[in-house]
Amino acid sequence: MSFNLLKGKKGIIFGALNEQSIAWKVAERAVEEGAEIVLTNTPVSLRMGTLNELAAKCNAPVIAADATSVADLEHLVDEAMKHFGGPFDFALHSIGMSPNVRKGRTYDDLDYDYLQKTLDISAISFHKMIQVLRKKDALREWGSIVALSYIAAQRTLYGYNDMADAKALLESIARSFGYIYGREKHVRINTVSQSPTPTTAGNGVLGLKDLMEFAESMSPLGNASANDCADYVLTLFSDLTRKVTMQNLFHDGGFSSMGMSRRAMRTYEKGLRFEDVHEHQFPFGTGDNKEE
Amino acid sequence: MSFNLLKGKKGIIFGALNEQSIAWKVAERAVEEGAEIVLTNTPVSLRMGTLNELAAKCNAPVIAADATSVADLEHLVDEAMKHFGGPFDFALHSIGMSPNVRKGRTYDDLDYDYLQKTLDISAISFHKMIQVLRKKDALREWGSIVALSYIAAQRTLYGYNDMADAKALLESIARSFGYIYGREKHVRINTVSQSPTPTTAGNGVLGLKDLMEFAESMSPLGNASANDCADYVLTLFSDLTRKVTMQNLFHDGGFSSMGMSRRAMRTYEKGLRFEDVHEHQFPFGTGDNKEE
Amino acid sequence: MSFNLLKGKKGIIFGALNEQSIAWKVAERAVEEGAEIVLTNTPVSLRMGTLNELAAKCNAPVIAADATSVADLEHLVDEAMKHFGGPFDFALHSIGMSPNVRKGRTYDDLDYDYLQKTLDISAISFHKMIQVLRKKDALREWGSIVALSYIAAQRTLYGYNDMADAKALLESIARSFGYIYGREKHVRINTVSQSPTPTTAGNGVLGLKDLMEFAESMSPLGNASANDCADYVLTLFSDLTRKVTMQNLFHDGGFSSMGMSRRAMRTYEKGLRFEDVHEHQFPFGTGDNKEE
Amino acid sequence: MSFNLLKGKKGIIFGALNEQSIAWKVAERAVEEGAEIVLTNTPVSLRMGTLNELAAKCNAPVIAADATSVADLEHLVDEAMKHFGGPFDFALHSIGMSPNVRKGRTYDDLDYDYLQKTLDISAISFHKMIQVLRKKDALREWGSIVALSYIAAQRTLYGYNDMADAKALLESIARSFGYIYGREKHVRINTVSQSPTPTTAGNGVLGLKDLMEFAESMSPLGNASANDCADYVLTLFSDLTRKVTMQNLFHDGGFSSMGMSRRAMRTYEKGLRFEDVHEHQFPFGTGDNKEE
Repeated sequence: MSFNLLKGKKGIIFGALNEQSIAWKVAERAVEEGAEIVLTNTPVSLRMGTLNELAAKCNAPVIAADATSVADLEHLVDEAMKHFGGPFDFALHSIGMSPNVRKGRTYDDLDYDYLQKTLDISAISFHKMIQVLRKKDALREWGSIVALSYIAAQRTLYGYNDMADAKALLESIARSFGYIYGREKHVRINTVSQSPTPTTAGNGVLGLKDLMEFAESMSPLGNASANDCADYVLTLFSDLTRKVTMQNLFHDGGFSSMGMSRRAMRTYEKGLRFEDVHEHQFPFGTGDNKEE
Repeated sequence: MSFNLLKGKKGIIFGALNEQSIAWKVAERAVEEGAEIVLTNTPVSLRMGTLNELAAKCNAPVIAADATSVADLEHLVDEAMKHFGGPFDFALHSIGMSPNVRKGRTYDDLDYDYLQKTLDISAISFHKMIQVLRKKDALREWGSIVALSYIAAQRTLYGYNDMADAKALLESIARSFGYIYGREKHVRINTVSQSPTPTTAGNGVLGLKDLMEFAESMSPLGNASANDCADYVLTLFSDLTRKVTMQNLFHDGGFSSMGMSRRAMRTYEKGLRFEDVHEHQFPFGTGDNKEE
Repeated sequence: MSFNLLKGKKGIIFGALNEQSIAWKVAERAVEEGAEIVLTNTPVSLRMGTLNELAAKCNAPVIAADATSVADLEHLVDEAMKHFGGPFDFALHSIGMSPNVRKGRTYDDLDYDYLQKTLDISAISFHKMIQVLRKKDALREWGSIVALSYIAAQRTLYGYNDMADAKALLESIARSFGYIYGREKHVRINTVSQSPTPTTAGNGVLGLKDLMEFAESMSPLGNASANDCADYVLTLFSDLTRKVTMQNLFHDGGFSSMGMSRRAMRTYEKGLRFEDVHEHQFPFGTGDNKEE
Repeated sequence: MSFNLLKGKKGIIFGALNEQSIAWKVAERAVEEGAEIVLTNTPVSLRMGTLNELAAKCNAPVIAADATSVADLEHLVDEAMKHFGGPFDFALHSIGMSPNVRKGRTYDDLDYDYLQKTLDISAISFHKMIQVLRKKDALREWGSIVALSYIAAQRTLYGYNDMADAKALLESIARSFGYIYGREKHVRINTVSQSPTPTTAGNGVLGLKDLMEFAESMSPLGNASANDCADYVLTLFSDLTRKVTMQNLFHDGGFSSMGMSRRAMRTYEKGLRFEDVHEHQFPFGTGDNKEE
């Protein structure tokens, strides 16, 4: 399916690592829809992942940049403008990582240097990206910026740890900068709050598989996949959504508006009955071990 | 525990039926805190319940009124003002009923006469109550009005049916009238969104027991009880919260800000494993029977 | 601009009256994007407006229906299915009217028969429409339903009166039915919360012109027009947004996320200074006349 | 007015500087209500302000601590436990500062070292405070923690700059830690989103005076003062609100639920007319000077 929805548009995609990445899917679909793109990720991610495959497929240059480094971002934007022959239209921020999660530091035992890194990588990088774009006047009028977020910004999910705080900060930056950039250049800035997704990053979250099953069971339309997300992000890059800005948009099959579905409740009820009957011989979990 | 928090204050309590009722607990506690009160409910409820016991205990008159009848409300307010010797300070609205729920009409098969009754009883009665209070200038400056709500106003819970829509309407009325009454008489109007509570009304909700267990398991502080709710409502009637208005205040042990707790997830996971193992001999539920 | 975004899709558009109507613009754009449509409005509106022009332009039948009448809706859906040769894909609900506003009844002096009509016309008609669609299995899998709303559902704007409560009810119905219809047929249901728009209905709102100016001044991208809204609604009817449901989506140039813009503040400050200087000779307004 | 609402309770108050401070008012009122307190602030603030007066009045020790320093916080909590003879009941966090605001760096030209300081001082210090309290098991069961916030966390106000992002982060920390601390010790954690208040910190915000006038004019009950706020915080420290947690509670006279009041609109309209008439001779503002 292609509608030429992004014909004539150009943009940068941050954060594609491998085929599971949402950013990867956005890149593929954007090109299908007629866009020209530049791909970027950190040097480490370029080594770990398979971005060159995508670059070949999309006929797109790869420019390494650590999104926490203003100098790297400046270089990236300069190169992208050279490549595109001038300013461009959109940018996707799909970046997040928590050293606290990686190192097993729970939320009541955070390492504050790690927390600073979590915030810098997962949220402040979004501000840096936008500030560099704006200082270099790199986006055309009515351009569109999107970052990927998660409902942990509004509601606590055990194990998501300081990434919840990072996502809250990310969404706030979208609002704060959305005002400035909108007022001056009509550039819109939104976040998409996506279903839990089995990307490389997502898989690092504690208990993602069961959480995904719960979300699937709660959401009337089921979880949104990375492919679904790519389609949705395209609409936000297109000219059909030019007056949507400073919003956090839930793309989650309805999860965010659910309190309890019948389907999830039936599984939960089975768990309750099972506890009553089998608690003495229950083979899962190990009591109150230290996790969140 | 008594602080004389409502010393010198007077008010009307709508909707106490029996000892389980939140309104009952509010009445008891208000009197303990020094308030004088008038009790009211529909003639049918007065027959079904045990309100006279409460009246005796609280030294309070009972004045029958159907809160959907403006004439009844006018009579009630006139009598209350006579009893109190003038205007008073607070009112509690704790009223809700859905004929669709009672008659087993699911949300995709609503009877529209019943829906109108659901809305009239559970939400519009709140507007009528306030409009009558205001027309009769029955509340003193800086008075306080509270209605009880539920999170179904924001998030869908299967089986809660058209009561969800009624609660959304109720909360909107609090905002709309809160502006008018606040501006003119400094009367504040708020709703308290309470944990699921095993009152006579609550017990009519499909699967309340399991839902309460789920909410208990999700909420870090556990569900708020009717007694807890009474304490909280007292603070809203007191002079210590005079600048809080047009708000929906969650009183739910944290439920509304939770996405998933570890404890609830463990029960859910047991249900998942149980499904895998025992589905063929599963003794609960009967498949896709007609419910929501 | 046409992307064939709705190629092969069919739907019903409720509520087009004349060229100013948002529904009119949606109809035009849907057809441009490849959809087939059926137009409907009340018999009175058909006489007052110019819907036949649109019908001719869109090669679409007009079927009269009062959306508060289940019988009319059943007839409409039957006829639409006959016309389309089977089930279809989308429906737009753009209907709202308050007799209280029309007759000058302020929010603290509502007529309750009028209020019932406001809710029936502006919100319950949405439930009726969906219930009829579903009972007749008139929508295909992954169909899309949209209703138009306004931020008064969340925040009080003086003069918007009981329409605020109707919009809150409307948005709740989208959530409640979105769960049911999504779970069973993957049909998604959303509301679009649109900037104030100078339609025939909008112009009935007290002080719309100045309110629009304020909203324009607050919104970094300016107010969204009816044309903008049509574009946005198309994305929600398309297959690119299939996992978005039960949401209220602000389409308002950023207004909903603004607390205060510099531009609006400067006008406000001039008003303040002007008051200080010229209050004695101020030529506008007439004091405390009866309005909200 | 005293109710002995906090009789037997003990707690730490962070952030009182001088008589204008909200924390100052909370300290005074807490003691009036029967609490014992410890006061703390940074060494610099202790020199700049007049905290010793308050300490004398409240019969409270002052313990210097920089809330961004875990070591300082550990010392503070140890000393407080010594002073109180064991664990205590509540803590108030009233701390915020942005070097970017102070140095006139606009939001599209942030200094990232300053941003890190803004977040550390205004938000992460809240996490540090709680983490230290919890590691030292310094709070009794059913204790209560409150931080002061502002609606900029949800809606952009020009000139509030990176403090908006800090407040969003602060509110997220309240939720994230509220889950952990609630689950384990029944300690509740909430933020109070207060009206703009003419404290020393508030006065640093661009155009606070006019913003306060606008908020006053929008809010049906008018702005909440520092005294009002103190009263409200007391209810959150009391045992009457034990099931409220992970909430952001608006204490703002209704501002957060307003879209437009008649009163604010009239001033705004005067500004509009004034522009039309007097623009050529308008004496305020200086065009597009560099501010947000």
